[in-house]
Amino acid sequence: MPGISSKGRMMPESPIRKLVPYAEAAKKRGVKVFHLNIGQPDIHTPEVALNAIRNFSGKVVEYSHSAGIPSYRVKLADYYKKHDIHITADDIIIGAGASEAILFAFQTIMDPGDEVIIPEPFYANYNGFAINAGVKVIPIVSSIESGFALPPIADFEKSITPKTKAILVCNPNNPTGYLYSEEELETLRQLVLKYDLYLIADEVYREFCYDGSKHYSCMHLKGIEENVILIDSVSKRYSACGVRIGCMISKNKEVMRTALKFAQARLSPPSFGQIAAEAAIETPDSYFEEVIQEYYQRRNVVVEAINKMEGSFCPTPKGAFYVVAKLPIDDSDVFCQWLLEGFNFEGQTVMLAPASGFYSTPGKGKDEVRISYVLKVEDLKQSMVVLEQALKVYPGRTI
Amino acid sequence: MPGISSKGRMMPESPIRKLVPYAEAAKKRGVKVFHLNIGQPDIHTPEVALNAIRNFSGKVVEYSHSAGIPSYRVKLADYYKKHDIHITADDIIIGAGASEAILFAFQTIMDPGDEVIIPEPFYANYNGFAINAGVKVIPIVSSIESGFALPPIADFEKSITPKTKAILVCNPNNPTGYLYSEEELETLRQLVLKYDLYLIADEVYREFCYDGSKHYSCMHLKGIEENVILIDSVSKRYSACGVRIGCMISKNKEVMRTALKFAQARLSPPSFGQIAAEAAIETPDSYFEEVIQEYYQRRNVVVEAINKMEGSFCPTPKGAFYVVAKLPIDDSDVFCQWLLEGFNFEGQTVMLAPASGFYSTPGKGKDEVRISYVLKVEDLKQSMVVLEQALKVYPGRTI
Repeated sequence: MPGISSKGRMMPESPIRKLVPYAEAAKKRGVKVFHLNIGQPDIHTPEVALNAIRNFSGKVVEYSHSAGIPSYRVKLADYYKKHDIHITADDIIIGAGASEAILFAFQTIMDPGDEVIIPEPFYANYNGFAINAGVKVIPIVSSIESGFALPPIADFEKSITPKTKAILVCNPNNPTGYLYSEEELETLRQLVLKYDLYLIADEVYREFCYDGSKHYSCMHLKGIEENVILIDSVSKRYSACGVRIGCMISKNKEVMRTALKFAQARLSPPSFGQIAAEAAIETPDSYFEEVIQEYYQRRNVVVEAINKMEGSFCPTPKGAFYVVAKLPIDDSDVFCQWLLEGFNFEGQTVMLAPASGFYSTPGKGKDEVRISYVLKVEDLKQSMVVLEQALKVYPGRTI
Repeated sequence: MPGISSKGRMMPESPIRKLVPYAEAAKKRGVKVFHLNIGQPDIHTPEVALNAIRNFSGKVVEYSHSAGIPSYRVKLADYYKKHDIHITADDIIIGAGASEAILFAFQTIMDPGDEVIIPEPFYANYNGFAINAGVKVIPIVSSIESGFALPPIADFEKSITPKTKAILVCNPNNPTGYLYSEEELETLRQLVLKYDLYLIADEVYREFCYDGSKHYSCMHLKGIEENVILIDSVSKRYSACGVRIGCMISKNKEVMRTALKFAQARLSPPSFGQIAAEAAIETPDSYFEEVIQEYYQRRNVVVEAINKMEGSFCPTPKGAFYVVAKLPIDDSDVFCQWLLEGFNFEGQTVMLAPASGFYSTPGKGKDEVRISYVLKVEDLKQSMVVLEQALKVYPGRTI
């Protein structure tokens, strides 16, 4: 029998997906499972985007330009202008989600064996993109005690080798919700300049900032315009994960010329998704005001509830719709599986993401979980009641 | 300035896209350009597919399952049953076009440095997928004199090394239109068994068979079920290239389990595209009867016209909607550029794809072009008049 590739053997299974069969089994047993494990928002996709699809009047669903529909890219440049990011349509390549855009970026700037530094915990799929591109993720630990702020610059410098090609930050962060400050980004700017690295910024949660805080983009950093690659997506912004539309943006012409070759190799991004995403740019501000108000309330419900639980701690992140919380547990993988397999409180349980899957340093995150607050307030409140009860009886509790 | 990856430097520009600026310039000069260069059919997408999109009633455009919407995969298995291909929904992973499906297949079964044998001329994008996966394409020349039939088995055997992991065939073939016979596939079956290789079959043109000939699928081959990977797409079948929906099919469980990890790493295929593709399965047979009748007439127009041109030769392929024709020219790259840059007949010219781009053996295909018959008969007839006039005055003509 012909074999399987070594990349294939290395490709990690998602830390969340591993639990799916247990969740399904729990449901079969009649247990209600609150899903706090996923990044799929429950918020409605803007009507303006759905209407564009419903009104599709073409006769042939054609390939689009490999870099994306030109009119969409022009409008997208306008969208960024509103966020004080000044680019043109030519600086944008549309990808099938941020996923494809990150892969384009990795393949464009890194050779197999090269290294990308990422503060951890980080979005677990970065591991998959790295294996795909044959590059190595070098994690730098950020700690829950500091609320997952940017690790000290000395930690970055210790990790830089001749193979280091890029630093990747997700801002606001998945899984921590942390929003990097202008000062922290300035630190990265200096690092990138000093070592002549690329700075890849995954800013798909740009809109989701709370407590009156403002998002500061890596595209705002002066003097490293040729080094910055912005990764974006409409998945979270418009609660439209299924359209599979993201983008890669850079003012570095050589980077964009090369990335376009990868884009051409797969012909074009999805046409219907682009039509929806183009229309979504007209989403009224009131949509975001409501959504952000909703997430703000949800975040507060989760953070307050966890900090009241004995032996538990949760920072108050200023962005995205995730928190990473520290719980009095021996092993988050075991705990999250037990929640589905061995526990219920009045016929209910919660599905969480073990934080271990967001670290690549072995042993990290064992007492942490990621909670996505993508349920309505009432359900979140009940989820927190269930979680508190679970922590009282979990066999591996540490208090 | 940080550099560009070596893969990025190696990624080829599409042989067709190189000509696009010349076509645009010609149009600006007021010259009408007949596009015989592309695989984008002019045929309408079935109404049933478009209506499914227009009737989308969801509130949130969600991620689908990483392997594709379950109900779509179930219906797809039924579609294959009608073609005497017996698989289940679990044997299918939906990709963003055949492009992504081929990449999944390459990454699943080959390590960087491994080799895949492909009869040439072949679909130029295979080069891109190979570079992407770090694998090497080993071409085996098929000749226009034999109508691009499968090269002798001895040619394959000469090329097999310890690095050889797979043979890839496109059937019906892009760019030649050649339809492999059951006997030819039987030859491949024996080869695959003897050397324990994978057989990747790109069958996206399955429906497009003429002269009463029947498509014989690699999935029909007995005794190599674990070796066969079928690549498919709805792009050509339903003239819906922009939906970006294809798939990878195999009965080899380990292959599918591994490919699923690559699929999970990019979350999910496009949801709207899948909705359209699922509905398209209900396309009435009459649609295909009309489309195939239309393409049949078009093929005859092109083949007959070219064979009447002095010093030119075109086989009569039984499938797809392409022909590769031999013309009395010195260099097809120069000729195709000249058609756009230096020629017009009564204000008209044609855009063709130089066949050199479909060969990886240097120097091959210099007197050949690929013609896609994706224009209506009347326009095709006029294109052939224009081509004949061009051949009479082309400075690099060889007769």
